[in-house]
Formats: sequence, C-alpha cells, structure tokens
Amino acid sequence: MSVRFAFELLHADPSGARRGRVTTPRGLIETPAFMPVGTAATVKAMDPEDVRATGAAILLANTYHLFLRPGHETVARLGGLHAFMRWDGPILTDSGGYQVFSLSSLRKITEEGVAFRSHLDGSARFLSPEIAIRVQERLDADILMQLDECPPYPAERDYLARSMELSLRWGARCKSARFADGEDGRALFGIMQGGMDPDLRRVSAAGLIDIGFDGYALGGLSVGEPKPLMAEVLSYAPALLPRDKPRYLMGVGKPEDLVMAVGHGVDMFDCVLPTRNARNGQLFTRRGAINVKTARFREDPLPPDPQCGCATCRRFSLAYLHHLFRSREILGYRLMTIHNLHYYQDLMADMRQAIAQDRFAAFRQEFHAARDGEPM
Amino acid sequence: MSVRFAFELLHADPSGARRGRVTTPRGLIETPAFMPVGTAATVKAMDPEDVRATGAAILLANTYHLFLRPGHETVARLGGLHAFMRWDGPILTDSGGYQVFSLSSLRKITEEGVAFRSHLDGSARFLSPEIAIRVQERLDADILMQLDECPPYPAERDYLARSMELSLRWGARCKSARFADGEDGRALFGIMQGGMDPDLRRVSAAGLIDIGFDGYALGGLSVGEPKPLMAEVLSYAPALLPRDKPRYLMGVGKPEDLVMAVGHGVDMFDCVLPTRNARNGQLFTRRGAINVKTARFREDPLPPDPQCGCATCRRFSLAYLHHLFRSREILGYRLMTIHNLHYYQDLMADMRQAIAQDRFAAFRQEFHAARDGEPM
Repeated sequence: MSVRFAFELLHADPSGARRGRVTTPRGLIETPAFMPVGTAATVKAMDPEDVRATGAAILLANTYHLFLRPGHETVARLGGLHAFMRWDGPILTDSGGYQVFSLSSLRKITEEGVAFRSHLDGSARFLSPEIAIRVQERLDADILMQLDECPPYPAERDYLARSMELSLRWGARCKSARFADGEDGRALFGIMQGGMDPDLRRVSAAGLIDIGFDGYALGGLSVGEPKPLMAEVLSYAPALLPRDKPRYLMGVGKPEDLVMAVGHGVDMFDCVLPTRNARNGQLFTRRGAINVKTARFREDPLPPDPQCGCATCRRFSLAYLHHLFRSREILGYRLMTIHNLHYYQDLMADMRQAIAQDRFAAFRQEFHAARDGEPM
Repeated sequence: MSVRFAFELLHADPSGARRGRVTTPRGLIETPAFMPVGTAATVKAMDPEDVRATGAAILLANTYHLFLRPGHETVARLGGLHAFMRWDGPILTDSGGYQVFSLSSLRKITEEGVAFRSHLDGSARFLSPEIAIRVQERLDADILMQLDECPPYPAERDYLARSMELSLRWGARCKSARFADGEDGRALFGIMQGGMDPDLRRVSAAGLIDIGFDGYALGGLSVGEPKPLMAEVLSYAPALLPRDKPRYLMGVGKPEDLVMAVGHGVDMFDCVLPTRNARNGQLFTRRGAINVKTARFREDPLPPDPQCGCATCRRFSLAYLHHLFRSREILGYRLMTIHNLHYYQDLMADMRQAIAQDRFAAFRQEFHAARDGEPM
C-alpha cells in the first residue's frame, strides 16, 4: 500500500465546526463522518451493499466480538475483515476494551492488561495493548484504536486519574507495538479519558499528544452521565486536541448529540443507536423520532420520511413497516435499519455542506426548528 | 385489465414432463414454475427485489395469515397486496383452509364453512367459500384458490370420501362467488382431494372438471404420508386433470420431489422448504444439501455452491455464512434464503430447458448422479 493515512482540514466554520477529509488506502472519508457499527463483521440486518447505498464511507467493527468469534486468526486466514464481510471501504476497529468492561465477566485489570471471561462461553481471555494491536492488524483494520480503560459514571477522581494515566501508558505501548509507524497504511488513534474533570482531560490530551497519534478520540462519554455534563466536556475537550488531526467522539449518539458535537469541532462518530433502535421500531426523521409499532401507523400509506430518498422510503409505507414489525418479519429490521442509517448519513452530508458554506449555526437552528413538532 | 388468464402447453417431453406458459395481467409464468412463499406479505428475510433477482415470476401469499393480520380490508385500502409489499408480478393466494387446519384452534366444520379461533389472539373467525373468495379478491390476488378441506394422513376412507365431496361443493360455491367469471383477469383454481385413494382422486378430478376451473391443484399430499405413497399418487393423479390447464402440486417439496413430480406432468409448485430451511442453516446445492452450522465450514473460503450465480455465492464464503449463522446475525438468514430460492429457480429453469429439448429423462439421471456424493 503506497497511500498513507492522512487528514486534511478543509474548512473551519465560524461556529467552530470543521469540514475535513481523511485519506486511507481504502478510500476517502469526508468529515464530519458517521461510522455505522458492524459489531460481528456485519452491520446488523444489512448487506454491505445496503450500507454503501446509505452513503457510509467507513464502518466500525468490534475487536472484542471478533476476537472471541470467529477469532482474528480465522479472519486473517480468510483474507481479513474486508474480504470476509465484503466491505471494500475503510474499517475502524475499536480496541476491545470497551466491551471487556461492558460485556465480559471476572475482569481483572493489571498494568500488563486485562484478564476476563468471554460472555459467549466463559473461557479465560487476556487483552494487553500489544495483543489489541496484533488482533486489529490481523483483522486488517485501517484505523486502529489504542487499548484504554473506559471508567463508568460516576467515578471517584482518584480512580479517574489513575485510570487515565494507565490508559496513557497503554497508549504508548500500543504505539510501540505498531508496525513500522504506519508504513503499512494503517492509522492508530489515541483515546482521551479523564471523565468529567477538565484538569484530567487536559493531562490526558497533553500525554496523548506527547506520544503522537494519527487521530484522537474522546472516550469516556455517553457512559451514563447526564446530557448537560457531556455537553460541558464537549465544550472544551475537542479544542485540547491537535487541530490538524481527526477528532473522534466514541459511541455518540442521537442526531441532536451529533449536531452539538460537530459544533464543537468533532469530526468522526460511531453509535449503535440508528441500527439498534431500528430493530426496536424507532425511526429517525427530519421531524424527530417515530415508532412504527404505534397503532396510528396501521393504515398510513406514507413513507417514514417523505423527504428521504432511501430504499425504504422510496418504496414502502409506514403501514407496511408497522405490519412487518408487528409480525416480527426479518425484512422489517433491514428496511428500518436502511432508513435510519440513511438518515444519519444525510444528516452528516447536510452538516458538511453547511460548514463549507459557513452557515452551520443557521443549520443547527433549522435542525431544531424542524423537530419542534416531534411526535414522540 | 384487458389481459385474461391463460395457459399454453408449449411442449410435452416423451417422459411426460410439460413445458408451458401461464399468462396473467401482471406477467408471464414459464412452467414448470416454483412459487416462493410470502406468508405474511413478505417472503421471509427477503426484499421483493431479492425475490425477483432469484428468477421467481410469481409468489404465493397466505390468505389465512393476511386475513388475521393486517386484515384484507386494510390491505385493500392500501392498494392491494402488490402495492403493499411492492411485488408487481403475479401473486397466487391460497384459500386459507390449509392454515385453518394446521394453525388455528377450536375448528368446527359445517356445510356452510369453518369456524375457528385465531392462533394470534384467540378471536373467533369464520371462513366460507364465499368469504375466502372475497378475501382473496380484496387482497388483489391474480390466482385464487378454492376453499377446501385438506385431510390429514392417515384418514379413514369414509371420512376422506365425505371430505372430498364437501371440497367439491365448496369449489362450486367458490366459482359462483367469483366476479363475472374471470373478467377481472383473475384465475380460480380447483383443488383435487381424495387422499391416497385412486377412486376418490378420480371422482374428485371429474367433479372439478364438471365445475370448470382455470387451473387444477393436487391437494392433500405432503401431509405426513410416506414418500412412496406420494409418488404413487403422482404417478396417476396429474393425468386425471385437463391437459390444457395448469396443474399445481401444493406444498411440495424437496428438489428431488419437484423433479419427480415434473416427470409426471406437474406445472406449478410452492413450498416453504427453501426459505424455512435457509433460516435453519440448510442450503441446497447441486451436490445435495449442506448445513452451514457444521464445524467443517468454519474456515471454508468457498461459496456454498461454486456453480451458483446468486448474490450470496458470488460474494460470500461458507466460513462467513457459518459465522453469521452461529452469531444469529439477521444478514445470514437473508443470504441463505437468497441462495436457496436461487437454487430452486435454477432447478426449474434447467428442467424447462431439458423438457424443451426432449431430454428430461437424461436431466433426471444427471440430477441424481450429481447428488450421489451428497454430504448429508
């Protein structure tokens, strides 16, 4: 691979929102960008062609899940994640740390790494910074994430400080474990921690910059804290990170969260919300969220969002989706996921255009005004 | 609609296999034809575009399911089944009788019709020949089936005889209930009953021909009888039906059953096997059936059937399907259903070609020879 990972900041809107472009050997990513989550080497209910058709340029896969099943060596023998799941665009893999803390049992964290038991079969497993890098390389990811510890909310300041320092040391080890510093075309992102504490966030950012990464993630948000607290952290934390590198807010969020965070200079997002909520019948629309299972859609001949051009809205009525959902038909999960991911990609595209035209503040007002009549 | 339903017998192979063409206002059906089952206004796990891409020209929908949910009046208000589910080709609906006998509870059959309770909510429902026709017309079906009683196997001859006579009387009432004898472009098929008894089958066929239908179905097979018994009935029953009308074997079957029945002059089939078995991990291939969940496919880089041109075999490995199935990923059900329906359509196309070339007997030999090494 001769193309190396790069980020170009194309434009900064007066509001602070950024329009950028990430270059990877597997294609460009226009930012701000939303990455659909392909947990177990599939964006749930979606064909890779469906994902591409929503406008997604990159997707995220979960190292924890693939480490356990089918295993990174199996994926490597089958040609890597892109060949395995037939997604030829870039893939970002998380480090596995977050799921170790949220899904596994009998966790034991040491300086060396984290021992845990698989949530699938109870088998004893171990993840260290070096193993996390090795696994992500074997998966053939284009953007790798450092192993970190993601503290819950609330957490004691002492614990938050020790945990953040550990994550920094793990970040440095991840960088050392990387192959020839990115000559294989892959990027490595560091993850800022520090909870809701501005001082710890500052120390974390400075430490990460010292190590030097291809991009920087904001971790430890959307972990149960009140929404105003997340907004507060986002009001200062992105600016602590280098202006010339992509900033990635992990695991966030609702459409209004993305609009807020983009206004604070965030470039990349991932979240299970559009896919998971689709499978629960919730659809995101320009007028707000609706749920197809409500009785008022029983005979509604309109599509979920008449302004939407997705493969679902172009063809099917709310009445049909209501019927599929009530009948627990598999097609319903796919059609609703197609719509939600399309909505998210349209939202990102609209934000990119607004930033390029220096009218992000106006876009934000219009976005909220359209949702004033939000039906639920 | 100016096009009326018609059947043209294009060619009869020396073996007895028939090559024909059904004309409907919504398109042509080359026979022998296999109709995928779209139970609740969706072929399970499939997009209507997926179904079309497998080569299917017509699909079957279940009157019983749609009568209960969302209701035929709801479907009618939404523009009929084709608009509702976005399938613009012809649709055959069964009469609802079979599911009343297999799914509902507290059934009570009288001359007038059958009272039962919904398997969904226990509500009291009633189906008569006139109601079955009305429901199918409101669903906007292209081929309607008469209401009949489908006796189980084994059954007493007296019961079989009485039941067959009742089905004949119901068939006559269905014909009387039809709109202007097909001027709306729809066809009505009668259903031959009589169990495994040649005399009753003869009486049933003669009675149906007296009434006069646009096509004739062989009912009461694949209801639990030993396979040689089904083969025996098929060796004489199709020939009891008019040569110039389509013959439809209901609810059958495995690939080898289709090959056998085509050899006896059957023109149309429907069965849940390719779709249901796909969701259980069973794939039909030219070498026989395989199950993706078996461990030997864990790292198999080959597609399910290297000779298959379906959207699954063109893109995905057995290893990936194995992984999706073991992870219970929704995408797996769709990919496996795509393959199985494609296999069935390829099989029908191969049979149509063999019949046209007077080499159906040779085809049948090759079909069985290829499966000698059947792995399960």
